[in-house]
Formats: sequence, structure tokens, C-alpha cells
Amino acid sequence: MSLRSFPTSHLLFLIVKKHVLYLLLLLCGPAAIAQKTYQPQWSSLDTRPVPAWFSEARFGLFIHWGLYSVPAWATKSGADGFGSGYAEWYWQRLHTPSLKIHKEFKAFHEKTYGPDFHYQDFAPMFRCEFFDANQWADLFQQSGAKYIVLTSKHHEGYTLWPSAQAWNWNAMDVGPHRDLAGELGAAVKAKGLHMGYYYSLYEWYNPIYKESPAKYVDQTMIPQMKDLVTRYEPEVLWTDGDWDQSSKTWKSEEFLAWLYNESPVKDRIVVNDRWGNDTKGKHGTFLTSEYGKGSVEKGRPWEECRGIGESFGYNRNENLEDYQSTEKLIYELISVVSRGGNFLLNIGPTADGRIPVIMQQRLTDLGAWLKTNGEAIYGTQAWEKAPGKEVFYTRKGKDLYVLCTQWPEKLEIDGIGKPASVSLLGQAVKVAGKFSGGKLQVTPPVLSPGKAGAYAWVFKLENAL
Amino acid sequence: MSLRSFPTSHLLFLIVKKHVLYLLLLLCGPAAIAQKTYQPQWSSLDTRPVPAWFSEARFGLFIHWGLYSVPAWATKSGADGFGSGYAEWYWQRLHTPSLKIHKEFKAFHEKTYGPDFHYQDFAPMFRCEFFDANQWADLFQQSGAKYIVLTSKHHEGYTLWPSAQAWNWNAMDVGPHRDLAGELGAAVKAKGLHMGYYYSLYEWYNPIYKESPAKYVDQTMIPQMKDLVTRYEPEVLWTDGDWDQSSKTWKSEEFLAWLYNESPVKDRIVVNDRWGNDTKGKHGTFLTSEYGKGSVEKGRPWEECRGIGESFGYNRNENLEDYQSTEKLIYELISVVSRGGNFLLNIGPTADGRIPVIMQQRLTDLGAWLKTNGEAIYGTQAWEKAPGKEVFYTRKGKDLYVLCTQWPEKLEIDGIGKPASVSLLGQAVKVAGKFSGGKLQVTPPVLSPGKAGAYAWVFKLENAL
Amino acid sequence: MSLRSFPTSHLLFLIVKKHVLYLLLLLCGPAAIAQKTYQPQWSSLDTRPVPAWFSEARFGLFIHWGLYSVPAWATKSGADGFGSGYAEWYWQRLHTPSLKIHKEFKAFHEKTYGPDFHYQDFAPMFRCEFFDANQWADLFQQSGAKYIVLTSKHHEGYTLWPSAQAWNWNAMDVGPHRDLAGELGAAVKAKGLHMGYYYSLYEWYNPIYKESPAKYVDQTMIPQMKDLVTRYEPEVLWTDGDWDQSSKTWKSEEFLAWLYNESPVKDRIVVNDRWGNDTKGKHGTFLTSEYGKGSVEKGRPWEECRGIGESFGYNRNENLEDYQSTEKLIYELISVVSRGGNFLLNIGPTADGRIPVIMQQRLTDLGAWLKTNGEAIYGTQAWEKAPGKEVFYTRKGKDLYVLCTQWPEKLEIDGIGKPASVSLLGQAVKVAGKFSGGKLQVTPPVLSPGKAGAYAWVFKLENAL
Amino acid sequence: MSLRSFPTSHLLFLIVKKHVLYLLLLLCGPAAIAQKTYQPQWSSLDTRPVPAWFSEARFGLFIHWGLYSVPAWATKSGADGFGSGYAEWYWQRLHTPSLKIHKEFKAFHEKTYGPDFHYQDFAPMFRCEFFDANQWADLFQQSGAKYIVLTSKHHEGYTLWPSAQAWNWNAMDVGPHRDLAGELGAAVKAKGLHMGYYYSLYEWYNPIYKESPAKYVDQTMIPQMKDLVTRYEPEVLWTDGDWDQSSKTWKSEEFLAWLYNESPVKDRIVVNDRWGNDTKGKHGTFLTSEYGKGSVEKGRPWEECRGIGESFGYNRNENLEDYQSTEKLIYELISVVSRGGNFLLNIGPTADGRIPVIMQQRLTDLGAWLKTNGEAIYGTQAWEKAPGKEVFYTRKGKDLYVLCTQWPEKLEIDGIGKPASVSLLGQAVKVAGKFSGGKLQVTPPVLSPGKAGAYAWVFKLENAL
Repeated sequence: MSLRSFPTSHLLFLIVKKHVLYLLLLLCGPAAIAQKTYQPQWSSLDTRPVPAWFSEARFGLFIHWGLYSVPAWATKSGADGFGSGYAEWYWQRLHTPSLKIHKEFKAFHEKTYGPDFHYQDFAPMFRCEFFDANQWADLFQQSGAKYIVLTSKHHEGYTLWPSAQAWNWNAMDVGPHRDLAGELGAAVKAKGLHMGYYYSLYEWYNPIYKESPAKYVDQTMIPQMKDLVTRYEPEVLWTDGDWDQSSKTWKSEEFLAWLYNESPVKDRIVVNDRWGNDTKGKHGTFLTSEYGKGSVEKGRPWEECRGIGESFGYNRNENLEDYQSTEKLIYELISVVSRGGNFLLNIGPTADGRIPVIMQQRLTDLGAWLKTNGEAIYGTQAWEKAPGKEVFYTRKGKDLYVLCTQWPEKLEIDGIGKPASVSLLGQAVKVAGKFSGGKLQVTPPVLSPGKAGAYAWVFKLENAL
Repeated sequence: MSLRSFPTSHLLFLIVKKHVLYLLLLLCGPAAIAQKTYQPQWSSLDTRPVPAWFSEARFGLFIHWGLYSVPAWATKSGADGFGSGYAEWYWQRLHTPSLKIHKEFKAFHEKTYGPDFHYQDFAPMFRCEFFDANQWADLFQQSGAKYIVLTSKHHEGYTLWPSAQAWNWNAMDVGPHRDLAGELGAAVKAKGLHMGYYYSLYEWYNPIYKESPAKYVDQTMIPQMKDLVTRYEPEVLWTDGDWDQSSKTWKSEEFLAWLYNESPVKDRIVVNDRWGNDTKGKHGTFLTSEYGKGSVEKGRPWEECRGIGESFGYNRNENLEDYQSTEKLIYELISVVSRGGNFLLNIGPTADGRIPVIMQQRLTDLGAWLKTNGEAIYGTQAWEKAPGKEVFYTRKGKDLYVLCTQWPEKLEIDGIGKPASVSLLGQAVKVAGKFSGGKLQVTPPVLSPGKAGAYAWVFKLENAL
Repeated sequence: MSLRSFPTSHLLFLIVKKHVLYLLLLLCGPAAIAQKTYQPQWSSLDTRPVPAWFSEARFGLFIHWGLYSVPAWATKSGADGFGSGYAEWYWQRLHTPSLKIHKEFKAFHEKTYGPDFHYQDFAPMFRCEFFDANQWADLFQQSGAKYIVLTSKHHEGYTLWPSAQAWNWNAMDVGPHRDLAGELGAAVKAKGLHMGYYYSLYEWYNPIYKESPAKYVDQTMIPQMKDLVTRYEPEVLWTDGDWDQSSKTWKSEEFLAWLYNESPVKDRIVVNDRWGNDTKGKHGTFLTSEYGKGSVEKGRPWEECRGIGESFGYNRNENLEDYQSTEKLIYELISVVSRGGNFLLNIGPTADGRIPVIMQQRLTDLGAWLKTNGEAIYGTQAWEKAPGKEVFYTRKGKDLYVLCTQWPEKLEIDGIGKPASVSLLGQAVKVAGKFSGGKLQVTPPVLSPGKAGAYAWVFKLENAL
Repeated sequence: MSLRSFPTSHLLFLIVKKHVLYLLLLLCGPAAIAQKTYQPQWSSLDTRPVPAWFSEARFGLFIHWGLYSVPAWATKSGADGFGSGYAEWYWQRLHTPSLKIHKEFKAFHEKTYGPDFHYQDFAPMFRCEFFDANQWADLFQQSGAKYIVLTSKHHEGYTLWPSAQAWNWNAMDVGPHRDLAGELGAAVKAKGLHMGYYYSLYEWYNPIYKESPAKYVDQTMIPQMKDLVTRYEPEVLWTDGDWDQSSKTWKSEEFLAWLYNESPVKDRIVVNDRWGNDTKGKHGTFLTSEYGKGSVEKGRPWEECRGIGESFGYNRNENLEDYQSTEKLIYELISVVSRGGNFLLNIGPTADGRIPVIMQQRLTDLGAWLKTNGEAIYGTQAWEKAPGKEVFYTRKGKDLYVLCTQWPEKLEIDGIGKPASVSLLGQAVKVAGKFSGGKLQVTPPVLSPGKAGAYAWVFKLENAL
């Protein structure tokens, strides 16, 4: 925990214990005490330091869950450009005849639900009867993820918490009749993980938004975001649907000033860069990339998100060949983290409240790998040297980690000092290396099949930087 | 039609034909031309003249139709004081454990729909698939009613028109996916009847209202009422649910000033007296009475409303013994009109969009009686003399109508001048009468059974006042 | 009660009281004691005497209730010949493209339920949650009907009782999960009315029947009919769907021999003439006519059946103009009874178990009329003289009843003896008559409107035959 | 392929090529030509040779799919003895209060579906809308399975084909409205796999069975089994639910005589040993074992069946920890086949017609392993020597396969001749071995992690027996 995230009550306690306070002042500098006030302008907002937990976490889970989890269907990925496989866009696909994939959605919808069945009719079918927040949180913990981001509201406008601004269009009023966002948040926090919420600024079909974005911002959006933050105290606010308006229209600067100055999570929360059609890649705590399509920037915190398949919302039209293997997912995790990013892997629960077992399998596999190799992921940073196709690097302090996504027959690392030791994470065997001229030649050990681990192997070079 | 309700285009036309205009000025006075502007204060609003059509109409139909039409159930009338039999209060009964009848509603609900079934789950079941606005309008016309008042929104908040302020909680978004209010309004007007809408100011469970009535008034209620009026141009706005707040909180005066000064129906619309807990019996075009429980006042327009049974919303728990007979309904119509009131008889359509045939029967019977006897109802006024138990009076100009709800063996009317003639409406037979000392003794004619008409008989005394 | 219908236990009791027995023997003849055994041949079966209660009853109620009560829809009567308005034929209409009305049914079905919705999917929607057998029986008693005939199984094959031969296709297994036939039978009998069941021999789509009528008769039909009779001991078995096969194929003679010789209701039960394509108008206790289309025969018991509207099963597509008025129904009752027939008036309950209030109204009106005039109906026989258009006759012993469906200005009855007295049923007034030359001239009395009764008036001529 | 299963068309072709035919006659004996006739007695039926394909196949897939796939729920395995986790027993659990687990089923059922929801109400929810027989067959082929056994009817009585004996209780009439058994059979055969059907002799709640097992056998069971066999020509008939009666009551001998003498698959079909409470482990083509609980007998064909989890029908209550890993499944396959049995691995599709992706994963993993190692499975037999805990043996002709479920550091095989060669399936590397005194000492090669294969390793010893 960084000092920045010290609760106020602790600070008061510290003030009494003066001598300790002086010590702390010495260690941390005056910023920790005198909270800075941010102005509602990007120039000021951008000066806020990044809460340390975020870059240390490296691996988070995204959860897309909403009424789209009922039809849970999309066309095959790539059928019509980016996002064809996004099941969470079902409603929009169904009502946008100009899209190439519209016809397929319509055909599926009418065959399955009949021509008079409207998207809203899915609401009572979103029952989540198997949803057990603690069971989910257990799994998340096992996966090795450090933070969770749940869709509190997607573009459909339906909220997973009892939002007064979405009366009869939220999970308490229609469908499960439960506060899904609250239940999950509490369980996740109890496991010591960071909880966050996704929130869509725009709504496809909200008539107030259609009539007047300004009215919608004042009457619906800002009240909802403040409610969400004060009610559940999340540490991530992951906005989306921002592209439809400028950040001025969304009043993003005002909101962020409130978030950074007044909200109960002002010291801990991180936000992404989706605050208007003028902010992407520029403002916010971290930049975002989605299925590899994003402008990530060296030296800035960033996050790559994607599904296990090609959809965020659960897609019943995906079969095994559409899901990424554990091997591929670990490859991506390594690839992202070695470039200084966070990896936010999405899962799509079902309408009856379960995480499909294949997703449990992937998460558990990742967790098992991280249990052995996590020290090369958590709290690390990118190393300056460009990775190879099968060899990646991360660093932590003076240690260098070499992550190999194929077992190397031989391995050579250049541009380092002589390491104090070389080891293979998770294996007690000695690893032989020959250092000469800033270059280390490693001889990978002989490992018995079945005990060799799998997916990727990490060599640790202590004190090599 | 009073001059007040002359359409503007006619006025423009009149201005061209100058001489006619002068004549009109002479007849009507300057008020008809120079539209008065009302101030948003009761003292000013109360000076608005009553649009003439209303008091001439005398007989209207009330329609309660909404999500409550799906369960369509209430306890027996009288089970727990006033309104026990009101099926449109289903939701509130279900969620108010302090009510005596709560247990009965809960028992019915859980047995029929299961314990996890919420009121909102009724929305997709409100399909109105048989609803045919023209068929309804035909029936209304046959019934002899002159105006129609449809619940555009009851206390549940669900609107029968596509209200932006009730997204996903209106008939276009969830349920029938049709603009019920608009369809019916058009059909009713095409028949030459006056169309009106009931609108509930408060909503039981709208969280915005619960949190802040003021915010609700600004964001939801006023926009909805203005939308309703400008969209459909009704001639009645029948508010309700006003008792929860003062007229100041509802901003009723501001709204009515808009309605009387600016709305497209400023000259024609009538409103009732339900504009806040301080207005009943005081302000508005007409006073209201419900199932005989109302403060009607001599010299003020007033209206009595009731169902054919003891519920407004359709109640499947009512059987023949709970419905009033045609005879009883005609009795009430006569009783109300003879006291100077309007009679607003309610019907409760079903969730599949039909008017139960028993209600069709009652309306058709009323229409048949009015076809013969309507001249003693429409456009009449109360006569000063108190009615008897079975003998009632109305007047029109110098004519007096004597309405007998039992066939009189003999009949004596006092306090009149010698009538020019005495007749029995609908019968070609001569009616003998003996006048002496301001008193007329009528000898009812002999009528053959089966041709004598039914329910009530009207003697007309021409030129007797 | 005729001796034939004396329960066995009473007979045993009588045997003990010897002297009474002798008296009875004297009155009734030996047939009452020595039960005849019938052979399974029409020539023998046709000799069975008609249980006396049936012809005395004169007025019964037919009830069509089944899965067709869920869609509850038919085209307008006459749209395509006989039976277009029959809602109970919904399934067959939907699956018979050769019918003219097929398209209309298909259009309605697909619009309302979607293209993938099959008739069988209606089964869980047939919930009958409001069904209260005692409430129904009360109404039936009030209507003046003396016997009830409920569809135990229509051509759809779905049974209203837990038939082992219709597993998962009966009211106990799917839908209401209740024994509708049993509940109603018990309640009806408790009111002292005669209970009977309609049973369709053929089934449109039963694959066993399609494959082999003989197998179906042995495995399904005969076991079902015997189960029905032994379980509920009905006094009417009203078969139908017989036209598809000969009585030999249906094994009707064998079944009837069992029914008349061995069944628990062998002395009391009546059956109609629908036992095969060779039996109509020939065999059975009574002949049948449906909506006036039947071969009734002088001197044979017969029964006319029809709905209040033009459908047997409840039809939501019928409005007031499709329902017969009380006046018309009384006309038909009189017309049928005066020709020596029974009138079986059908009602169609709803899928939620209610009798529509308009039907309650008609039944109650009939009951009120019968309370006054029933003595001219129950236990009477046709008089030899042909009725007029508005004047009908029935006789009971030496008394003649003259039933007038319009109030007669004057009335003349020819071909009788001088009556001991002339009266108007339900009126205390004296009726004047002049008898001369076998002819009676009646002067109808003067009656006050509102006290004159309605629908039809009956003059009773005592001791005139 | 044995001659017994030669298609007729091939035989005709052979007759033309005379010389070849003579050769075949020489090899196979006259039995192949002159079909033996079996008597309806076990002594005769038991003499029928085992169709060769069955023992060669070694690996099959079981599919449990029916109305239980809708609730898809069971208690945790072991909660109450054997079968607690069987979701396909849902109905029985719900209606058998004497079971310990009854309460849990009841609680789940009432909470999820309400107290008035009956098992039959699941039927319309079994829609199978995603079911694609070819897609399934593709997956089955990829899994390496050689035969498929689908539940044509489980104890619930609902049939997956349009059975005339289960009218309105089969997949064509209620639910998917498709011939699931037929569609899958055709697709499976088109892939060259053997198709079979499971069929439950008894039915929990069929009233005809309850009333008279004999009547049920004649009217329902025998007609259904013959229909199934003649319609779809399966090569496996996997009966169950036999324990409730003796094989005499089931008329099993008569049926099998028909199956072996007259049915279209008389030469090819195999049946299990479940033909009555007196047949298990005694009669039929092969003996059965379920989750390891079965009496398998040396020298008799036998089959072990189990689910991937602890249920046959899909169980939504199972999570990753309840599913067997690929490693464990391969262990069981090896264990069974090395003891001379077949392994029938069950999958439970969902009510919407999908095979859960986790099951796809397991099947695909098995298929990948079999692609390399299948020659040690298909067409092999048990070797006389007892297996170790991690070392198993199969033989084919003179070759011996040593299957290691853990990578052996060293490996010693006793009791063989000197093999012509030793290899490791799927690896091009040389395998060193030292033979001496009937004993072979193998030195496993060094394999690079990631290329070493997984789950189990097979050493092939050519010509060693």
C-alpha cells in the first residue's frame, strides 16, 4: 500500500503519534500530507500521480455481464470488421440495418425468439440464479488476477446496481432482483483484490440522451457515476462509449475533479482514457487497447483487454476453436507485461449466473502458471531491450526475468552485467550460464517430461542490471 | 361549440369577413378575441371560463388500463375500507404489509406467479394483441358517451405512450410495443368524441420521486405532462395522485398557466381539481367524486366516476354479482345529471386488449336508452327542485324533463307553469295531464309489455319553466 | 326419480320393508326388479328404456374446456361454412391447409405466438387458477339447468381427468395439475344436478389412432371410456368424433352392452346417437342436433346444442354482436322444448378457469325466467299442434302451456277443451278468456311496464286437454 | 471388419469375383454365409458371436440428453450414496421424499421454478435451438471415439425420436420439434462412426407401466424398441432400467431373438447385459460397469461408462473441480483398455443444443492424444500381465504396448521375448533398451519440454510376444 492510499483515520492516528509522523514525512515527502486540489481542467488533472497498486497489479479480469448475456450470441468474429463477434452489442446489431451483420442477427433473433420479441423482453430472463459472489471471487483469486472490472452498465443502459436513474431497467428491479455490482464488489474486496467498474457514458437508445446529451449528462450520467463511486468505492472506473461526444459535453473534467478531490476513493482510484472523443491516448490514469487495437505509449501506464474468445459478453456461438488456449493467453500476458502494460482478460458469465467451466479452466491454468512464475509479472517493468518472438523480458529492481514462450534449446542475453545467479522459476535444478562481454549464455537444464511445467518458462537473472 | 373553442384558422377567416366579425363582437364581447393571459396563481387561473362542451357532454367513459391489467385481481370490495376492490392498486397492496388486505394480495400473487415474480415481470405480459382502437371507438360512440378519459399513466409510472421520461417503462418499449394512448386518441377523435387522459402526479416507487419530489417534478412530471398535451391535444387532463404534495411542490400553478396560455388546447381543455393536497374541491375546471365519495358543490361543474363493478382496473375476481346492472347504472346516470354533474363510467380492458363482453353489454344498453332518452341528459341542467327516490328532473331552456326510474302509477309535478305539451320520450302515445295551481297531474299511458322500453322513463314537459 | 334409477342400496332396504316393496311392484311392474341383460347388438341395445330424468330435464349446459381455451380464437362464424367459428377446432384449422380459413388461423397464430410455437406448447398455459367447482355449480343451479355435460376429452386428445391412456396429455400432468372433470362432477352432483361427460371417440393427431384405429380402440379409447364411467359415474355420456369410423370399428355395441349391463350407472345413464358413421339419428338414447343442423325425429328423445355465441370453446374473437341476447336464447329454449327436445346451451370457460361474466349474465337471466316460467318447460311434452312464429305450446298431463315470445295483443287457441282456468305465469292478475267451439280467446291483461316480466310470457290453461 | 458385417452389396460384388470368394469361404467358414437362427432363450441367444467392430472400437461416447437437461442440476456427488450427482434423475429425486437428497432437489426446484412448476413444464423449454448434428459428429470424430450412444429415452419416458407410443412426450411433439435421434444418427454414420441408442426399459411414472408392466411391455416398450431399431438401424442398443422386472416380464428373450434373426442390424448390433434383474453380468454382448461399479469378467467383452464429471445429464452445479482433467480421463481410458474393456465417456449437452466448451476441450485433448497413441488402444487386447500403478499394457498380434501415465525415469518389462525394435509413439527419437533373460530394460530418451507430449507415453515393443 502506498502512503497515498492511507485512509484518513490512520492519518489522524499518526498525527497523535508525532514522532512517527516526522519519520514518515522524512520518508515520503510533504505531498502525502497536504492533499493537492485538482482543477477541472486536463492540465491539472493530468498531474495526478498514478496510484501505485495499478502498475504493480499487471493482471486483471474484465467481466461483461448484462441483458446481452441472455441471447448470448454474435456472428463469427471478422464477419464484418472489428467487433463482429461482440455479443454485448446484440441490441445495436439488431436495430442497425446498415450493418452487414445485421441480417444475421435479425435471422437468429426471429428464429429463436419470434418476430415480436424485443430486447427489453430479455430482462426478466436475466435471472442469475446460480450467481455466488464468493465462489466467483475464489476463482478470481486462484487465477492470479489482482483486480476486477465489472460492467456496471453497458451501452444498453441496464445497470447491475439499483440505480435510481435507471428505474425498472436495473438488476434490482427487473431480472435477478439483486444488487449484482454490490455483491460482487464486496466479495472481491474481501479477497484482497481491487474492485472496479466499467461504465458506459453513452446509451444507444436512452431517449433522454437522444433528445439532449446535456440533459442526460446532468440528470442521468453524472448522478449515476457519483452514486457508483460513493456506494461501492471502486478502485477502477473504466469508462466507455465516450466517442459519441467531446469531454466537454460529458463534463468529464468536472467529474474527474470531483473524483480526485472529493470522492471517497480520491487517492486510490484509477481511470482509463475514454472521457470523450478528444481524450483517447491523452488523458486518464492509463491508456487502453482492445484486442490489440490501441495506441499504447511508452512511459505511460496502459492496459490491453480482450476476451478468452472474440467476444466480451458470453457468446453461445463460440466453440472450442474460437477460444484461445491457455498457452496463447499466457503468451499474451507475457507479451503485454514485457511491454509495460497490464493485461485485462475478459470473461462472460451466463444469464443464470455461472462462469462457464471452460473459462474456469483457463483462469485456473493461468493461476497455476502465475503461482510459479508470478514474480516475473507482478510489480515488474518493461526492460529497455526489445523482445524476440519467443523471448520476453521484465525487470524488477536489479533483477532481470527472461520469459520464454517456447522451451529454448539455447539462450543468450546481451547487454547486462554478470548476474549473481541464474535460476529457472519453479525448478530446483541448477542452471548453467557463461558470462562474457556483457553477454550471458544460458544452458537450459534437462527436465523430465511431465515435470517440466508448461506454457512458458522463466529464467531469473539476479542482480544483472 | 362555444366561441372559446373556435379554431384559430376560423378566426383568421372571420377577420377577413369584417362585417361578420363585428356581428360576433356584438354577440360575444371582446373576450372572445383578445385571449386573456393567466397568471400562475390560483386567483388568476380560477377565472378561466369552463369550456362549454364539458357540461353539455354529461356522460363520459373512463378507461383504466396498465400493467395491473395483467394480474387483474383485487380483494372483494369493502374487505378493508375504501378501494379494497381496486385492481389498479395491486402493486401497492403487494408491498404494503401494514394493510389488512396485504396478506390476501400476497397469497394470491405467490400462488399464481410464484414467490420470485415481481410486478415488473408483468410488463412483457401486457401484450394488448387484440386491441383495435377503431372497434373500441365504435363501441364508445354506441354507448352514448361524449368523452373518453384514458389512463396515460397510473401510480405505477408505466406510461401508455412512448414517454422519454419513462424509458423501458412504457407501452412502446415493453409489452405491446405500441402507442396505446395515441392510437386510441386518434380513433376517438375521428368519431367526434372528446379525448382526454388521466395522469398520476405521483408514482409509488419511482426512486427519483422518492429521493426528491422537486427533482421528479422538473425532470419527469412536467416534461411528461407537456409532452402528453402537445403530442395528443387532449380536451381533458384528469390528474390524480396529487394528495402526496402541495400544489406548490407539484408546480401546478405554473403548469396550468402554460396549459391555459400556451398549449395547443388552451381554449378547449378541462382539468379536474386534483392538483395538490390543497386543491381538492377548490380549483380546476370541475370537482371530482369517486364512488360517491366526493365534495360536489352546487353551481360548480362536477363529475362522478365509478366502475361497472367496484374496481377501475379489470378485476378477474369480480363476478356477475359484483357488476352493476344496466338498471342501476342508468339510475346513477340520472341521479348524477339531475344534480348537475357529469357521469364518468369506468371500464377495465383486459391485458390482451379486449373490452369484456359484459362491459360491452352494459355500454350498449346505456346507449340504447340514451338514443331514446338522451335529450333529457345531454346539455341539460339541474332543476332547482329536489328529486324524489324514483323521480328526477333536468331542464333545458324552458323545458322540464321528469325522469322516472320506476314506472309511475301516477305522477305529480309541482312548481311549474302549464306546459305546452306533455310527452313520453320514445313513445308515440299521447300523455294525458291535468294542470291546476302550478301542479301537473300526469296519467301515465298504458303500454304493451315488450314495447314499453325499460330501465327508466322520461316525461317531457315543454315550455313549463 | 324413476324407479330405474333407484340406487341398489335403496332396493335392499326396500326388500326388508316388504309391504312397501309389494306396493312398488304393483305400481312399476316387474321390469324394475329383474334387470334385463342387453346383447352387444343394436337390435338389443335399442330396446333399453329411456331413463326418465332426461326428458324431464329439458335444459342442460354444455361446457367446452380444453387446451383450445388458451388461444381461444376462431374466425368469424360463416367464414368458411359450418363450424368456422368453432374455437375448439383451432389445432385442426392450423394444420389443414386445404381449408379456406386455414390462412386466417395461421396468421393469427404466428402473429400472436410466433412461428415455432406449437399447439402442445399451450398445455402449460392452461392453468385454470381461478377454477372453483362449487362457484360454477352454484351458477349452474341458478341458471335452471338440470344437467351438465363437460368435455372430458375433445378431438385434441387432452383429457380433463388423469387418464392413464393420456399420460402427460391430461389436466393432472400438464397445465392445471388438477382433476378438473372430477372436481366439477362432485360439485355438480352435490347441487342435485345430473353430471355428464362429452368424450371424443377419434383424435385428430394421436399416432396410435393414425396407425391403427383398432389398436387405438383397444388400448386407448375403450379403457378411457370405462375409466371415465367407473370413476365418476356420469349420467350422460356424450360421444363425438364418431364419423370417422363405423360403430363396428369403434366396438360401440360391445361398449354399450357393458355400459347398460355392468357399469355402475347402467340404470341411469343416457347416451347420444354418435357411435359411428352408421348410427346418427338411429341408435342411442337421444338424437342430437347442433346449431339447428340435426335430424330430429318425432317421438324420439332429442337434444339441440349450441353456444351462446357461434363457438363452443371460448372465443376471444367474439364480441357482443356475436353473442345471442337473453331474449333469443329463451326463444330457442321454448322453440326446442315445444318440439319435444332438450336444449343444451354451451358455455366456454377461460383458460384461467372463469366463466366469462357475460355468460354468467345470460345464465342468470335464463334462470330468472325459468324460476317464473319453468313449469312450462320441465317435465313437459310437445303438444300436437304446430306452433306459430311467436306462439308455442307445451303440455303436462291435461294442462296446456301457451308460450308467447312477443306480448300478444290478442291470443286464440284452437283445438282444446274448455280450460278450468287461465292464468299468466308469474302474475297474480286475472286473465279473461272466452271459450267457444273448441276455441279459446284470451284477452291479455294490462301490465305495468317494469313489472310485466320480459322475454316471453306463458299462459297456462288448466285441464284443457 | 468381420465378414459378418459385410454389406450385402459387397457380397454380390464378391460373388462375381469368384476366386476371391472361394478364398474367403476358406478363411471364414460356412457360418458367414448360412445365417444361424436364434431361439428366444438365453442358452441360444448367448451363442451369438460378438460383432468384431465392438471390441476393436475401444472408445465410445455416451450422450445423456433429455428434459433433465433443462433444470440440469443435481446435488454434489456423494451427497447421498451412488448417483447423487446424476442430473438425469432430477424428476425422481424431486418426487421421492424418502431420499436424503430429496430436500435439496426440492429446495432448488421451488426456488428456481416456483412451487407449482412441474417436471412436465420443462418440455417446452427443451428447445435445442443450437443443435447441429454435423458439428457434433465432427467433434466426435476428432475425439477419436469410434461409436456413439445417445439416450433415445431415459427413465422419464420422453423420447428423442417421434415415437407413436410417446405421443406429446417426445422431441418432435414437444420441445425442439425435431427428430434429434434421427438427425444425430445420420450425421454420426456419415462420419463412419457406429451409432447406438440407450433405451430405458422402465419408466418412473408411466401410468400404464405402473398399472400393468405386462401391458406396458406389449403396448409401449416392445413397439418402441422395434421402431427404434428398424427406423435408425443402430449398432448398439444400450438398455437400462431393467432391474425393476425379470427378463421374462420384459420379454427380453423374444425381443433379442427378433433383433438377432430379423432386424435389419441382426449381424452388426451389440447389446449390453441389462435385460432384467436376472441378466446383469450374464447375458448380452457385453457386460457393463458404471463409474467403476460393475462386475467385469475376464474373457468377456465389457464396457466402463462414466461422465467427465460425476453426472451423465448436464449438471450446472458442477464446476471445474468436479470435472476430471484430461490427464485423469486418459488414465482411465488406458486403465480400462489395458484390462480388455471399452471406455464409454459421457457428455451432457445443454437444453439449447450445445456441447459445453469444456467438454469439447476434453474430447479434443483425448483426440489429440489418440492421434499419436491410438494404435496402442484401437484393436488391442489385454496382456496377461497385471499392470502397475503407472504402467499399463496392451497387445496387438505380437506387438506389446507399454503405456506410462507418468514419465518413467526407468522402465523394465518382464516376461517377453526380445523385441525387434523399441520406440516411443509420436517421437522420432531412438529408444535404447537392454534385453536379457526375458526382461527388457528401457532407457527413456531425453525430450525437450514442450515437445514431449503430455498425459501418457507409449512405448511400442515390436514382435515381443
